[in-house]
Amino acid sequence: MSETEIIIEPGRQDVVFKKVFDAPRDIVFRALTDPDLVPRYWGPARYETIVDVMEPREGGRWRYVQRGPEGEFAFHGVYHEVTPERIVQTSEFEGAPGVPALEWATLEEHDGKTFYVAVSLAPSVEIRDAVVASGMESGARELYDRLDELIEGLLARP
Amino acid sequence: MSETEIIIEPGRQDVVFKKVFDAPRDIVFRALTDPDLVPRYWGPARYETIVDVMEPREGGRWRYVQRGPEGEFAFHGVYHEVTPERIVQTSEFEGAPGVPALEWATLEEHDGKTFYVAVSLAPSVEIRDAVVASGMESGARELYDRLDELIEGLLARP
Repeated sequence: MSETEIIIEPGRQDVVFKKVFDAPRDIVFRALTDPDLVPRYWGPARYETIVDVMEPREGGRWRYVQRGPEGEFAFHGVYHEVTPERIVQTSEFEGAPGVPALEWATLEEHDGKTFYVAVSLAPSVEIRDAVVASGMESGARELYDRLDELIEGLLARP
Repeated sequence: MSETEIIIEPGRQDVVFKKVFDAPRDIVFRALTDPDLVPRYWGPARYETIVDVMEPREGGRWRYVQRGPEGEFAFHGVYHEVTPERIVQTSEFEGAPGVPALEWATLEEHDGKTFYVAVSLAPSVEIRDAVVASGMESGARELYDRLDELIEGLLARP
């Protein structure tokens, strides 16, 4: 399993996530866009994730609910683009409604591996810093490790 | 007619537009969301703007085509939120496909005037700077002046 590289530069509005999956792109894309698979990796493992809405296509909507010891949290957004090369969506935390983040992921395949780069762009530096302070980094590492495990499992039993 | 304030700070990914319309919010909101009105102010006056698609609601899509002496240009995106208080959308220039900008406008009414603040957030500082260098500022001033005139006309003959 590869390390997740997380880049958080001071004064910027974005956080960048890089990961290399030892699997072809179509498998990674499937894991990212199949509503039945999302609950198996999205968010920290101590939360249950419920996919309330997921329409992975241009103009489609998504909404995930997380249930955990601290209560229930929900996130939602719309998809701007969904292709095996790039997924672009908005993402709003319903606990702090306002302007959403813009999130995009690019997927490139080389020699059977998928090079994944995701960017989360906050509407301000202050909001990005607040999200980082809330523990986003450890949550993201857990998410990407679980996604990696899921993808390994899909490769073994497609 | 009020001046359009445009804020472009070095090293940032956004451009901020501020305008005070001498009209109640429902009139400004109508001008921003009525497909029949958009061609009357969107873009520089020397271009004809055609509203190809405009579904101003969460998950709706939009696509505008501009025809001018230099040829035809198109922009498209999806709406994340459309309320009289806030419009949030993505915006991609089809001549340079990639990650879209995130655009949002907030509308507040005080004493019969509407205080409008719009932000265009580019996926990188470099892309923001390229858009600014392409003449975005003068184009935006023209757009907001034409919008202001249209709103004056709607007030006179609602």
